[in-house]
Amino acid sequence: MKKNIFIICILILGPVFLQAQTHDYKVVFDLTSSEAMAHKAVIRWINEISKSTPDAKMEVVFYGQSLNMVVKNKSEVSDDVTKFAATPNISFKVCAIAMKNHNIDKSDLLPGVEIVPDGIYEIITKQKEGWGYIKASF
Amino acid sequence: MKKNIFIICILILGPVFLQAQTHDYKVVFDLTSSEAMAHKAVIRWINEISKSTPDAKMEVVFYGQSLNMVVKNKSEVSDDVTKFAATPNISFKVCAIAMKNHNIDKSDLLPGVEIVPDGIYEIITKQKEGWGYIKASF
Amino acid sequence: MKKNIFIICILILGPVFLQAQTHDYKVVFDLTSSEAMAHKAVIRWINEISKSTPDAKMEVVFYGQSLNMVVKNKSEVSDDVTKFAATPNISFKVCAIAMKNHNIDKSDLLPGVEIVPDGIYEIITKQKEGWGYIKASF
Repeated sequence: MKKNIFIICILILGPVFLQAQTHDYKVVFDLTSSEAMAHKAVIRWINEISKSTPDAKMEVVFYGQSLNMVVKNKSEVSDDVTKFAATPNISFKVCAIAMKNHNIDKSDLLPGVEIVPDGIYEIITKQKEGWGYIKASF
Repeated sequence: MKKNIFIICILILGPVFLQAQTHDYKVVFDLTSSEAMAHKAVIRWINEISKSTPDAKMEVVFYGQSLNMVVKNKSEVSDDVTKFAATPNISFKVCAIAMKNHNIDKSDLLPGVEIVPDGIYEIITKQKEGWGYIKASF
Repeated sequence: MKKNIFIICILILGPVFLQAQTHDYKVVFDLTSSEAMAHKAVIRWINEISKSTPDAKMEVVFYGQSLNMVVKNKSEVSDDVTKFAATPNISFKVCAIAMKNHNIDKSDLLPGVEIVPDGIYEIITKQKEGWGYIKASF
């Protein structure tokens, strides 16, 4: 009986301790700015974090006025976006509603950039899953 | 005895599973900007979310320089604020300290707009309650 | 046996109830803006919060373009930073990577200002520990 209760406790409390022990780096960047300065800053942060913590998970969500950062012939950081989008731990996700509002087609996006139905829902879902949140604005 | 332990497990773990299963849309918007562009963006987001997810809970907290959005004869989106403030799932809450700093009286606010003692505390309380957080800045 | 299970439940559920009952005020401010207006706003918020809730824990993390706020002879709020940095519940933490990028040395910082290896990791760690998050941008 005592053994059973011990096992139950492990099953219940295990995840709590595991959560406390994880040191993983997971961050979602919220980007709505049209300014190239903000776009370059996000690339710089991704670059620095991926160097210091190669297994860090990073995601940038684009909505509002920020979509040019991931649009061909408009992005000032297209090479960086394409390079990082090809790595497994980094993703760039564009809000479909914002794409529609700005007449941006799937074919206009840089390679590897993904589409999500609702950028805000994507962000708050990541928050709920325990990802850190950083608003990329100045 | 085994049955009792089973019931205890259900009681303990039930809320954990329930929390993981909820797909509800709850988001608090942090608005400090004086720019009408930001005010219109927040209204557009509320409009789009309330169309796609009619039972989404949304709250906008006003402090810093953003109060004109909810002040009569100053807001550029007064009709939208009044309309959404009348719906049960959407609320607009102004920081009382910011009101005092900007000499704004309760009677200056658009109908349905609420007052909270401390806008920052309102936001971090919502975060603690599991609401998603979005800074509305560009 | 029943007594044991009762004790186990208390041990397991205790922290859950405690967490729900805490009303503590803990907030991390994310500051990347170079604008003195943003720097003054953060000082005003710290001032107001520390008056209404003397035991509130507050931390400002500086990265991006915001470092002048904590640099000698450049900060427009140096007296306030120095004063608040001397209190036990308020801390000002600068990202070491941003310091390097802006050629800022430890000796350039106002007294009491601390250095963290990675400003973004500092912020998301605080979020994970249950601190509220406020992006200080306009």
